[in-house]
Amino acid sequence: MERNLKLTVAYDGTNYHGYQDQPGLKTVEGRFKEALEATFLQEIDLKSAGRTDKGVHSQGQVVNFKVDTDIDLGNLPRVVNFNLPPDISVLGVQVVDQDFHARFSAKAKLYRYVIYNGRYRNPLYENRACFVHFPLDEKKMEEALKDLPGLRDFGVFMGRHAVVKDTYRNLYRVDVKRKKDLIVVHFYGKSFLKNMIRRIMGTSIEIGRGLKDTNTLKRALESQDKTYLGPTAPAEGLYLMRVDY
Amino acid sequence: MERNLKLTVAYDGTNYHGYQDQPGLKTVEGRFKEALEATFLQEIDLKSAGRTDKGVHSQGQVVNFKVDTDIDLGNLPRVVNFNLPPDISVLGVQVVDQDFHARFSAKAKLYRYVIYNGRYRNPLYENRACFVHFPLDEKKMEEALKDLPGLRDFGVFMGRHAVVKDTYRNLYRVDVKRKKDLIVVHFYGKSFLKNMIRRIMGTSIEIGRGLKDTNTLKRALESQDKTYLGPTAPAEGLYLMRVDY
Repeated sequence: MERNLKLTVAYDGTNYHGYQDQPGLKTVEGRFKEALEATFLQEIDLKSAGRTDKGVHSQGQVVNFKVDTDIDLGNLPRVVNFNLPPDISVLGVQVVDQDFHARFSAKAKLYRYVIYNGRYRNPLYENRACFVHFPLDEKKMEEALKDLPGLRDFGVFMGRHAVVKDTYRNLYRVDVKRKKDLIVVHFYGKSFLKNMIRRIMGTSIEIGRGLKDTNTLKRALESQDKTYLGPTAPAEGLYLMRVDY
Repeated sequence: MERNLKLTVAYDGTNYHGYQDQPGLKTVEGRFKEALEATFLQEIDLKSAGRTDKGVHSQGQVVNFKVDTDIDLGNLPRVVNFNLPPDISVLGVQVVDQDFHARFSAKAKLYRYVIYNGRYRNPLYENRACFVHFPLDEKKMEEALKDLPGLRDFGVFMGRHAVVKDTYRNLYRVDVKRKKDLIVVHFYGKSFLKNMIRRIMGTSIEIGRGLKDTNTLKRALESQDKTYLGPTAPAEGLYLMRVDY
């Protein structure tokens, strides 16, 4: 019987050229497909909730595929994980309706951006957080970021080489928390443009340093003028945490 | 002018044969001494608060050494870090009294043991936490661990090849917290025997699984009978967090 399987996948993106499969490059999707094909001994047509950039991590990427198998689902994650390297793993599995599609059925995504704001670099946050050694005022960052939520044209924050015509996105919520040396920002929205969160965060970091005003994100949105923006924040601080259906 | 410098050192212990220098092996101490000698261009006699095992991490190892230098202390961590690999770094520096000794002046140490109690392995806790996929009851673990604090003979928990005559240690406090899939246990005490925390944790994990009674640690202490104990918990869950003076 052909079943439509939904899997939740975690990965450390450090050693991959992003999620999406590309010929000749080591990608999470490519590696994951190999593991599935080794498990089911058949070709797998994999759908994924989203493409994460090179270096971005996941605790909640969702994929689905249809497969004719009688394998016990309780064992499936362990079997697939056995075929995966230590930096990718399946966290859960579910049988879903035949028309479920990891990308098109998604209602919302939760991303986390982590800044390690210590004075000196810390080995335990190496490749796992964006290291900023200048003191950051997270209250200023919070003030700037509260202007973002809503259904808006976020085109100003889109990566240069992205080709999307409709740059309106619905951002539901942004929140900022500091715990000692860590600043953690959550973005919850319907979907996101390429590089959108990293561009917002790069500018927010300059706001937190006091280099830009707290109304900078608002002005960038209103004017669609990229000269308001700071650099794109590094990929290593970004995590896809959850996809809601 | 010869100054006595106290440095706080963080490391990811994954790729080292423990902290303590050993001929022919890659150790944190050996690598750290090299970086100091490259910085100061002289031989450095390094004292350290404690020796951590192979695979154990640190966010608060303390070392000290005397050096004749006029280097600006504000720059020192960055200069030393420049000579260190990404998995070791200096987090802070202080000038201390001539008679300060990282080991003998220490009043207490804080260790953290992290268990990732998810159902399947998670790449982001790889080498950074002890992975236990059996459900653990942290309340049982807490109940068992509350019997430990005090000035007691902890000899039953000492590693087999350790040579220490006085096995009494003063353990001030143990606390257990769960946050979703993570169980975090803190041990705060004057000093610890070799493998003591990992042996306590190995047994606590069996208590949390329901394989041993909650009075097992107490019985082991009272009888000094090692047959009460479970296996030694893996090094990768252990962090030296802080040394107090």
